[in-house]
Amino acid sequence: MNRHRISAASVAAFAFAALFTFSCNEQTSKKTANDGVEAIFPKGELGPAKNFTGNAWNYGLVENDSIFTTLVGNVYFEPGARSNWHTHPAGQILIITDGVGYHQLEGQPRQTIKKGDVVKCPPNVRHWHGASPDTGLQQLYIIPNTEKGIVEWRQPVTDEEYNNAK
Amino acid sequence: MNRHRISAASVAAFAFAALFTFSCNEQTSKKTANDGVEAIFPKGELGPAKNFTGNAWNYGLVENDSIFTTLVGNVYFEPGARSNWHTHPAGQILIITDGVGYHQLEGQPRQTIKKGDVVKCPPNVRHWHGASPDTGLQQLYIIPNTEKGIVEWRQPVTDEEYNNAK
Repeated sequence: MNRHRISAASVAAFAFAALFTFSCNEQTSKKTANDGVEAIFPKGELGPAKNFTGNAWNYGLVENDSIFTTLVGNVYFEPGARSNWHTHPAGQILIITDGVGYHQLEGQPRQTIKKGDVVKCPPNVRHWHGASPDTGLQQLYIIPNTEKGIVEWRQPVTDEEYNNAK
Repeated sequence: MNRHRISAASVAAFAFAALFTFSCNEQTSKKTANDGVEAIFPKGELGPAKNFTGNAWNYGLVENDSIFTTLVGNVYFEPGARSNWHTHPAGQILIITDGVGYHQLEGQPRQTIKKGDVVKCPPNVRHWHGASPDTGLQQLYIIPNTEKGIVEWRQPVTDEEYNNAK
């Protein structure tokens, strides 16, 4: 094993702290979520209630550094779970690897996202993402150009916003 | 559908041209590869023989632009297929989503990579990646800081290099 091979376990704690400042240490090697959505990575760490509604699990894949200036990880949203509204100073790319969920940019309609979809959130545009009510969501996130910042958290997504398909 | 939602089909041609200058237009919606390796994305475009040994299929996910300065895509390597040696001016991150393959940084041992693994190749370090002889490889690639460049292709990986586990 060479020094450039990333141990997912070794970076999970950092990425988790940098991105979500998660407060729970639950870690599991369970590979398949309860709702039939397939997982590539372990569930990781439970996101804090101050930033999420419902259960969202973060597993860090690439920690931030000065060479790649890119943060990468996986989030599994249980059915009904979603992030708060938030912004990324350099934007964010989401890659959906399984399940069904929602993504919304402020001022635009909520969009349904599913396995194989790719979503870009531009820099400093408020957005939220999460699972559909009945099916969980597995999504990779890529935050580029981290020298500009990682994430700025805002208010929770209300049930009215979550359920509004317009 | 809002303007920030990326149509994978619309970016495939660009990413393919920028990264591999593929020469074949075969496109398929087939989601599962022949060797039992599970696919999240369509196979995409066949990589050119000048840069690959065997069949490697590229599917572009995020085209390069001046905002995200990040190129993302998926490559499916059929069993035995591998890239030439090559470098990335700003480095590359690989995320293995299924199958079994190999990755080697010049001057270091060949490493086996499989579902759930993450590999980083530092800027300007020569490397190659591909499938194992008997099982294909599904891998996402992330090229950050594309203002520094995308890829510089070198010589093929010989059978001796490919088969050398040391």
